[in-house]
Amino acid sequence: MEVVLSCSMLTLYYATGTCALASHLALEYAGAAYQVVRVDFSQQEQRSPDYLRLNPKGRVPALVTERGVLTETPALLQFISQSFPEAKLAPIDDPFLLARVNEFNSYLCSTVHVAHAHRTRGNRWADDAQAIEAMKTKVPQVMGDCFELIEREMLQTPWVLGEGFSVCDMYLFTLSQWLSGDGVDIHRFPKVADHQRRMLEDPVVVKVLAAQKAST
Amino acid sequence: MEVVLSCSMLTLYYATGTCALASHLALEYAGAAYQVVRVDFSQQEQRSPDYLRLNPKGRVPALVTERGVLTETPALLQFISQSFPEAKLAPIDDPFLLARVNEFNSYLCSTVHVAHAHRTRGNRWADDAQAIEAMKTKVPQVMGDCFELIEREMLQTPWVLGEGFSVCDMYLFTLSQWLSGDGVDIHRFPKVADHQRRMLEDPVVVKVLAAQKAST
Repeated sequence: MEVVLSCSMLTLYYATGTCALASHLALEYAGAAYQVVRVDFSQQEQRSPDYLRLNPKGRVPALVTERGVLTETPALLQFISQSFPEAKLAPIDDPFLLARVNEFNSYLCSTVHVAHAHRTRGNRWADDAQAIEAMKTKVPQVMGDCFELIEREMLQTPWVLGEGFSVCDMYLFTLSQWLSGDGVDIHRFPKVADHQRRMLEDPVVVKVLAAQKAST
Repeated sequence: MEVVLSCSMLTLYYATGTCALASHLALEYAGAAYQVVRVDFSQQEQRSPDYLRLNPKGRVPALVTERGVLTETPALLQFISQSFPEAKLAPIDDPFLLARVNEFNSYLCSTVHVAHAHRTRGNRWADDAQAIEAMKTKVPQVMGDCFELIEREMLQTPWVLGEGFSVCDMYLFTLSQWLSGDGVDIHRFPKVADHQRRMLEDPVVVKVLAAQKAST
């Protein structure tokens, strides 16, 4: 892992299988000049002094820009959308619709991602081994409830916001990739399943997934 | 609880002691024409059919606007900032600085608020009583770690963003109010403690806290 603290080209720090995929997709859809650096979680690189200097949270994603390092997926998704307006990745000129984007992304980061994290990161919230096991046990139910709400109340067609494809679709796709590992059958949610299928066929998604796979 | 589904005046649904305080403060600082409706959690009003029609998540805050209902604190804080630009509640004209705002607010909603929720809402993530107790036990440590990071890496002076007072300060103040109940001594974090003290002296904060107290 090479650490770049500031650069005229955008640099995304990511790890495979994480929510950083959403920002990676956004950079690609934006047509941005960017590079990616993989943080190897299996080597605990996110806890290395070099990485902690870049992102004291020890998490991904982190985006190095010429004005400094930015973190947190919802912040990155809006920043990329605003930095590349011609790519039309979000309704950035309408505060109400932009609030809809942030409402959706905020739900994904604070509720859905958190529900998922209780499967493998339970030690963040309890020390006791049995408690960590009890959290794991409940993940299929909690993730299922989250996606039931997404299916019923949030996901329009063909895209999250309706006609306009946006960063919300990249983020939803990213988290929908976790359902199988979390013990939830995506086919309980026909709209989500169809959304994931269409995303998987998109050449941009194919390219980004291949790039992440090649780096591992 | 009276339910208003659409109205030319902004209507904030809140409950006392919750993160909805941040949005309540933002509306007041914005000089918005708004009303508030208290959702009585002790009566489980957030689970009532009327409220679930308004906000299917069964949570607060929810902001009723003339274009629809918005939820999620980071989304509301940016929406209020953009709707009342003259109040200068966020650097809305600079995508990088606005990303800083969302990075901060996103950390508060997805990590700090979640850490706090493990004290009283552990049943969201486990069914086992001992597991829920184990989560409670760890809350002082986890919340302490969060605020140590805020103190060391995020909170500038005099305000979160430095010279400019913003919605980040309202959100930080809101969550800093939880430290004592979470078993964390705020004085471990001199900048956070000073920030809270200055906020508590601000007439807008005094007015909003009094309004919430009067409604209970």
